[in-house]
Amino acid sequence: MASVQVVLSYAEKQFPNFVEELQDFVRFPSIGTDDQYKKETAACANWLAKHLEYIGLQQVKIFSTPRHPIVYGEWLKQPGKPTLLIYGHYDVQPVEPVAEWSFPPFKPFVQGDYIYGRGASDDKGQLFANVKALEAFLKTYKQLPVNIKCLFDGEEEMGSPSLANFIQTHQNLLKANVAVLSDMAMLSAEQPSLTYALRGSLSVELEVKSQAVDLHSGNFGGAVHNPLQVVSEIIAKLHDQNGRITIPGFYDQVKTYTSAERNYMRHFGPTDKKILEDAQAYNGWGEKGFTAYERTTIRPALSVNGIVGGYQGTGVKSVIPAKAGAKLNFRIAPNQDPYVVEKLFRKYMQEIAPPSVAVNIRAHLHAKPYELNIRDPALQAGKLAFQKVFGKEPVLTRIGGTIPAVSLFKEKLNISTILLGFGLPTDRIHAPNERFYLPNFKKGIKTSIWFMTALSQKANLSGSVVPRQLQKTSSFT
Amino acid sequence: MASVQVVLSYAEKQFPNFVEELQDFVRFPSIGTDDQYKKETAACANWLAKHLEYIGLQQVKIFSTPRHPIVYGEWLKQPGKPTLLIYGHYDVQPVEPVAEWSFPPFKPFVQGDYIYGRGASDDKGQLFANVKALEAFLKTYKQLPVNIKCLFDGEEEMGSPSLANFIQTHQNLLKANVAVLSDMAMLSAEQPSLTYALRGSLSVELEVKSQAVDLHSGNFGGAVHNPLQVVSEIIAKLHDQNGRITIPGFYDQVKTYTSAERNYMRHFGPTDKKILEDAQAYNGWGEKGFTAYERTTIRPALSVNGIVGGYQGTGVKSVIPAKAGAKLNFRIAPNQDPYVVEKLFRKYMQEIAPPSVAVNIRAHLHAKPYELNIRDPALQAGKLAFQKVFGKEPVLTRIGGTIPAVSLFKEKLNISTILLGFGLPTDRIHAPNERFYLPNFKKGIKTSIWFMTALSQKANLSGSVVPRQLQKTSSFT
Repeated sequence: MASVQVVLSYAEKQFPNFVEELQDFVRFPSIGTDDQYKKETAACANWLAKHLEYIGLQQVKIFSTPRHPIVYGEWLKQPGKPTLLIYGHYDVQPVEPVAEWSFPPFKPFVQGDYIYGRGASDDKGQLFANVKALEAFLKTYKQLPVNIKCLFDGEEEMGSPSLANFIQTHQNLLKANVAVLSDMAMLSAEQPSLTYALRGSLSVELEVKSQAVDLHSGNFGGAVHNPLQVVSEIIAKLHDQNGRITIPGFYDQVKTYTSAERNYMRHFGPTDKKILEDAQAYNGWGEKGFTAYERTTIRPALSVNGIVGGYQGTGVKSVIPAKAGAKLNFRIAPNQDPYVVEKLFRKYMQEIAPPSVAVNIRAHLHAKPYELNIRDPALQAGKLAFQKVFGKEPVLTRIGGTIPAVSLFKEKLNISTILLGFGLPTDRIHAPNERFYLPNFKKGIKTSIWFMTALSQKANLSGSVVPRQLQKTSSFT
Repeated sequence: MASVQVVLSYAEKQFPNFVEELQDFVRFPSIGTDDQYKKETAACANWLAKHLEYIGLQQVKIFSTPRHPIVYGEWLKQPGKPTLLIYGHYDVQPVEPVAEWSFPPFKPFVQGDYIYGRGASDDKGQLFANVKALEAFLKTYKQLPVNIKCLFDGEEEMGSPSLANFIQTHQNLLKANVAVLSDMAMLSAEQPSLTYALRGSLSVELEVKSQAVDLHSGNFGGAVHNPLQVVSEIIAKLHDQNGRITIPGFYDQVKTYTSAERNYMRHFGPTDKKILEDAQAYNGWGEKGFTAYERTTIRPALSVNGIVGGYQGTGVKSVIPAKAGAKLNFRIAPNQDPYVVEKLFRKYMQEIAPPSVAVNIRAHLHAKPYELNIRDPALQAGKLAFQKVFGKEPVLTRIGGTIPAVSLFKEKLNISTILLGFGLPTDRIHAPNERFYLPNFKKGIKTSIWFMTALSQKANLSGSVVPRQLQKTSSFT
C-alpha cells in the first residue's frame, strides 16, 4: 500500500491543526467520577461525536448510560477485511490536589514539546491519535484499510461501570476481530513498547465509626477510640515488614513465572532505578525478592488512595471525628480473582477490627487481570507499526494499571486488545500538571496509520505468522 | 447587698433581648483559624467593642495583633474593691465537616430551650453571660460591685498565639486580683460544677513525603512506600494494646494522685457511662487502669485530629499521594511539660520513621497544664454564686481541655482564674450543630451577678476562709 505515504503526509501537514483540536478536546472538564461535572462530561461526548462525523465516520451515536454517555461511530466498507474496534475514553481523572497545579487544569496550552492539561495524555491525546489516523485516511482516500468501530467510554476513570452491560446488550454492534486501545506509556520517547499484560483492580472503601458525633479532643481525648487512629491501626496491619500483604490466603492464587520470563523482564523492562526516577521517589519500597518492575506488574499491590476524616484545613482543630474512612486499592496479579480478594479482605477485617468501633466495607470496581497471548498476529501488526515509525522494535511490556474494557472485550466479545500506548511515564497522569509529549502525539497518529495498514494485509487474524525476533524473545510463553 | 435583687430582675426582664443580641453575636463567622474569615472576625471584634461601650464600660479599645484583634474594656470606679479580669473569646471553631450541619452554622436561631449556631456555647454565649451581668449592674445602679477589666481574645481556638505577648506588653493595663472565665461545661443542667484544673496541650503536624509527585497507583503500586501508609504505620505505633502512649519517657513527669483525690473524682465526677453517653460513643477506649474521667483529666492523651493526603472526594481515584500528613494533639497531664513532650516525640519519630520517606515535624501551641489551689477564696465566691442560682453546691471538677490564657494569667500576672462554666457536655462544641442551653444562659448571667457581689464582699483575695463542705471534700489537696 504505497498510498500510505500520502496518508502520513496529510497527518504531517495537518498536525498543527490536530494540536489545536486536541486543546478543544482537553478544555472540557469531563471528570466522570464527580457528579457536578455531569453536564460538561456530556458536552465533551457531544463534541467528540460531532468530531467523528466531521472526519467521516458513519452511524455516529451517543448512547446514554446510567452515568455518562458512550460515543460510537463506524466505517464498514471493506467487507473482505478485518474489523478493528477502537476503544478509548474521553473522561478524565479528578484534579485534586488543586493547589498543586501550576496552571488551570482545563485551560490547555502548548509549551515546548508538550501540551499541558488534565486528560492531555490520559486519554484524550492518545484516543485522538487514533481518531486523527482515521481522518488522514478518510480525508485523502475516502476509505480506510480495515473496517472500524469506535467505542469511546465516559467512565473509564471510575472503572467503566456501564461498559459491561453496554457490551452485553450490543454484542452485534460491537462484533470485531480485534480491538486497539491507546492508553498507556511507552518505556521512553526513544523506546516504544507494546503492552501485553495488565493487572486487575479492586477498590475498597473502609469506614470506621466510634461515636455518633465529632468530639472535642481536649474534653474527650483518652475516653474513646479515635476512628482515625483505628483506620491507621488497620492500615498498618495490612503489610508486614517484608512489604507483603498480610491478608491470609492473599497470595494463594498469584501466578508464578518461569525464570525465562523474569529474565526477559529484567533484560527489556525498566530497572528499579528507572522506575524510581519516573516516580521521582526518594527510595523504593515493596515486596522483598522482586524487582520494582515485577512488583508493579506480576505481583499484587495494595495502595491507600486516600484517608478521610478529621480536620484537613490549615491550622489546628481539636476534634475527634465521629468517623473516618480509607480508600484502598488492590492491584490484582495474574490469576488472582478480585472477588476472592474481596472475600479474603472482608474476613481479615472481621478478625482485626477492634470491638470499640463499627466497621463498614464497600467494594467497587472488580476488574480481572489480563495477559495477551504474545503470538497473537494483531500484536505483530502493532509491532510492525511501531518499527516503521520509531525505527526500533518495541519491547513487550507489562503495565501495573488496569483497563476493565480489555478484560470485558476478551470475556464478552472474545477478542484480544492491542495496547498501542503513546504516553510517557513522565506525563503525570492522575497527578497535577498532566501533559502529553507532542512528538509522541504525531508519531502515535502515524503508528495508528501503519497499524491499520498492517492489519489490512493480514488475511487471517486468528494467528499464524510469528516474526523471528518475537519467537526468540518470547520463549517464556 | 440587698440591691442585687434589682439587678437580677433586670436580667430576668431583659432576657429575651439578650437572646436576640446573642444571635447577632453568633451571626459573625469569626473563624479565627481560617484566614479567609479575617474580615468577619475583625467585624465581630468591632461589634463586641461597641457592645461593651453600649453597656457602659470605659476605655474600650480594639488592640490589633499579628492575627486577630483583642477587645478590651474596663470599669474601675471602686478603688477599695478587688479588680476582676473577665476573659473570654469571640473567635469560634471551623465548621468542618460542613455537610453534617442540619442548618447554616452562622444563621443562629432559637428552638425549644436552645440557641443553635457555631460559637453559641463556645464561647460567645458564655462570654455574653458575663457581659450581660455587667450590663444588669450598670443599667440599674450605674456601678459595679468590683472593678472590672474585660479581655476578649480572637485567637483562643488557635491556641491564643498573640495573647502571651499582649499580656507581657500590657501588664499594668491587665493588673488584677483574680480572673474569671466562662468557657466550659458543667456536669449537667441540674448539677453545677466548678473547674479547678485543665490539661495542657501540644499540637504536632507530621508530614511524610515519599516522592516529588502524585503517582498512579496502578502503574506504581508496589514500587514506593505510600505516604498515607507510612503515616498510618507511624500512628499505629503511638499506642500500645493497653491504650498507653508508647513514646519512651512520655509518662515520666505525669503527676501521681493520692487515692483520696481519685476517690473524690470517682464520687463526684462523671461515670464512664455518663461520659460515653455524652460522647454518644459505642464503646470506651483508653489507658487501662483508669476511669474515663481520669483518662480525660489527670492522664495525658494523644488524639489524631486529622489525616491529610490522597483523594477524599466521592468515588475512587487511583493515586499514591506524593505526601501525607497527620495533625496530632497531645493533652498534657498535670506536671508534664509540653516542650519536654515535643522533644520526646521528635526523638521517637527519628527512631520509628522508615528510611523510605522524608518526615517533617512542626509543633504548635505549647500550653502547660493548670491546677487551681482549691483553697483560693475567689473559688469560694464562685461556689457561693452557683449555690445561690442553682440551689446546689457545685462539684469541683477537672476538665480535659486546655485554656492557654489560664496558664498565662498565672505565669505573667500571678493571678488565679475562676472557671465559671455555663455550657453543657451536650452542647456539641467543636462539632456540627453546636448549641447553647438557654436556661443556662440566664442562670449564667445570674451566677456572674452573684459572683461579682460575693467577690466585692471579700476584703482580701489572698485567701483564708474555706467553707466547711469544701474543707471536707478537698482533703486530697
